[in-house]
Amino acid sequence: MKTVHDKTFMQKALSLAAKGKGRTSPNPMVGAVIVKGGKIVAADYHRKAGTPHAEVLALKKAGKDAKDATLYVTLEPCCHTGKRTPPCTKAIIQSGIKKVVAAMIDPNPRVSGTGLKELREAGIETTSGLMEEEARELNEAFIKYITKKEAFVILKIAQSLDGKIATASGESKWITGEKAREYVHKLRSEVDAVLVGIGTVKKDDPSLDCRIKNGRDPYRIIVDGNLQIPLEANVLKHNDNKTIVATLSYNPPLPPFAKGGDIKSPFGKGGCRGIFSKKWSALQKKIDLLNNMGIRILQVKDKNGKVDLKALMKELGKLDITSVMIEGGSSISASALSSGIVDKVLLFIAPKIIGGKDSFPSVGGSSPALLKDALRIKNLQARKIGEDFLLEGYL
Amino acid sequence: MKTVHDKTFMQKALSLAAKGKGRTSPNPMVGAVIVKGGKIVAADYHRKAGTPHAEVLALKKAGKDAKDATLYVTLEPCCHTGKRTPPCTKAIIQSGIKKVVAAMIDPNPRVSGTGLKELREAGIETTSGLMEEEARELNEAFIKYITKKEAFVILKIAQSLDGKIATASGESKWITGEKAREYVHKLRSEVDAVLVGIGTVKKDDPSLDCRIKNGRDPYRIIVDGNLQIPLEANVLKHNDNKTIVATLSYNPPLPPFAKGGDIKSPFGKGGCRGIFSKKWSALQKKIDLLNNMGIRILQVKDKNGKVDLKALMKELGKLDITSVMIEGGSSISASALSSGIVDKVLLFIAPKIIGGKDSFPSVGGSSPALLKDALRIKNLQARKIGEDFLLEGYL
Repeated sequence: MKTVHDKTFMQKALSLAAKGKGRTSPNPMVGAVIVKGGKIVAADYHRKAGTPHAEVLALKKAGKDAKDATLYVTLEPCCHTGKRTPPCTKAIIQSGIKKVVAAMIDPNPRVSGTGLKELREAGIETTSGLMEEEARELNEAFIKYITKKEAFVILKIAQSLDGKIATASGESKWITGEKAREYVHKLRSEVDAVLVGIGTVKKDDPSLDCRIKNGRDPYRIIVDGNLQIPLEANVLKHNDNKTIVATLSYNPPLPPFAKGGDIKSPFGKGGCRGIFSKKWSALQKKIDLLNNMGIRILQVKDKNGKVDLKALMKELGKLDITSVMIEGGSSISASALSSGIVDKVLLFIAPKIIGGKDSFPSVGGSSPALLKDALRIKNLQARKIGEDFLLEGYL
Repeated sequence: MKTVHDKTFMQKALSLAAKGKGRTSPNPMVGAVIVKGGKIVAADYHRKAGTPHAEVLALKKAGKDAKDATLYVTLEPCCHTGKRTPPCTKAIIQSGIKKVVAAMIDPNPRVSGTGLKELREAGIETTSGLMEEEARELNEAFIKYITKKEAFVILKIAQSLDGKIATASGESKWITGEKAREYVHKLRSEVDAVLVGIGTVKKDDPSLDCRIKNGRDPYRIIVDGNLQIPLEANVLKHNDNKTIVATLSYNPPLPPFAKGGDIKSPFGKGGCRGIFSKKWSALQKKIDLLNNMGIRILQVKDKNGKVDLKALMKELGKLDITSVMIEGGSSISASALSSGIVDKVLLFIAPKIIGGKDSFPSVGGSSPALLKDALRIKNLQARKIGEDFLLEGYL
């Protein structure tokens, strides 16, 4: 078997894996290709958490052809009995597969090499690292989630060439063109959640839905420290229990959720001390109203009077939300960057100049005192989307 | 002769022409290739105003081989006796050239088709329009200068991803990387002049020279309405009579220049009415000092209390300055854009985020009330220069 063919088969497995984008969470995307005599005899990918893994699907398709064949898989096969599926290693061993080529070791600490070890111990030849970079990029959200128990954070900004997201009067619709906006809807279909600050809700009243064919609506998270959200906001109009308002914990803390009890209060039960201030009553009333609308309230500790975004990402991780796309505005982008939660930046740049010291910069807050303390973006790539450019990079 | 070959020869002529970049002003760059029997027999390009034109150089090289040959030239040959050289049409007719292929008609209203007409009348076959777009781009500065008598204006901005050119404390060195800065020095060698606002001089104290091997220093223009420039500024330390301070005209107007008399006062001679206010005396003293340092003072009419940049570009056109690169800061970029003088934007974007409502935006001033009134940049292209991206487009 030549290396050039190895890559072809792994590329095929990666392409298959990518078909699961936005559907497999909290599982990784995985693709598997079974090759015998230089020919693909079966191939498949993981579709959705709780359904069979890619390897098992492909092995089933291959049947007897799996004997003495090579399995190309984008992620090390699992060796643990998950919540929902039996270990893949067992199925591989039983199938008679001769060799397993994995793109990467499973970052899940429960696997992390033991899957391949188990295969080797059963006499199967194994290698890993083929097209690892591509495989890691594909599952970048899963890797963070599984290793840090925090959501992978994408900061999306749509700005003018000169870094503005709105005119002084607040007009921001639309800075980027149709193709870029359509692409954002595709991204919404791929991430587990989108997140905005309350400022954006009050100013733009977005629905934060996914408006593409066969798209899947993400969770919608509104960071709203003081529960200012208007009850008639568009983002509250979805009847899918996928809207979350992240607010501050009050003293006394709010009681555990009246509804949707699968989210734990960070204070545990019985935190309510029975001292109800006027503000508290008003807040409690609003929480009740929101709960009645099917909105979840997540109480997060504060950081300088604002919702601690780092703590929020941990909370979201607990909810199996593995990826979050932050969609503005100025303040939340600045807070996200300064709190160190951002993993990836997507910057849509429209061929326009807005100008003005008075207009809204894409990143608000305060600038660092020294230029050397500016945030560095790694592996920045540019590509054209319609009339706009998309610059993509990592923190 | 096949079209594919036509393009090859014209491409060669364009590449040759480009060798004259930054040296031919106020003349256009021109390349000429003489082809006979499908082979190049001679080729050359215009090197410097006052020296022979490309066609003449190539014809001289070709000698008798020019007979019945085809001449590919990036610009219609001139038919007028210029200040410095005889018309090319005459030399072409005498050489026995059979066919002339021009990339574009000369935009100079004194030629504009009459060159080719003269050749046709002498029995030479002519065509024009081959690779016209490339030829026009090459001589974009010349085209504006010769048709509008104004300098072609490039706005260069070096900013972070979020459109900042300095931190709140004013630190701006360096936002972009070494390669991008080197590229700027190459650009300085290609334009006739660079221009900055007085704010940049006071803040950064730039030399505005061209620090590349075999580079050519451009004119340096400082827009300084109230003559605040410190006499010890680095930009004043060049002893080459290529520094110009553009300031406001005062009432009473300043007398004609004490030195460097080749620049006319916009008020003509004898404008001084003998009424010297205190301010006037102080300004006059500074002007004398600057003049003694070999600095030219250009008095330009004001627009809302600032130097009228449109009027300044006309003044520069009169000085045969065909191209100007504006190099900041925030205010001058905003004024340049709002006054409509900018032809081309070069945006170097560093892979950094500075953030802050308090930091310096790349374009200052005021934003338009409506988003639809934002300036649109056409034909925006992106490419990587070192670690940075260069986005290039036209107004």
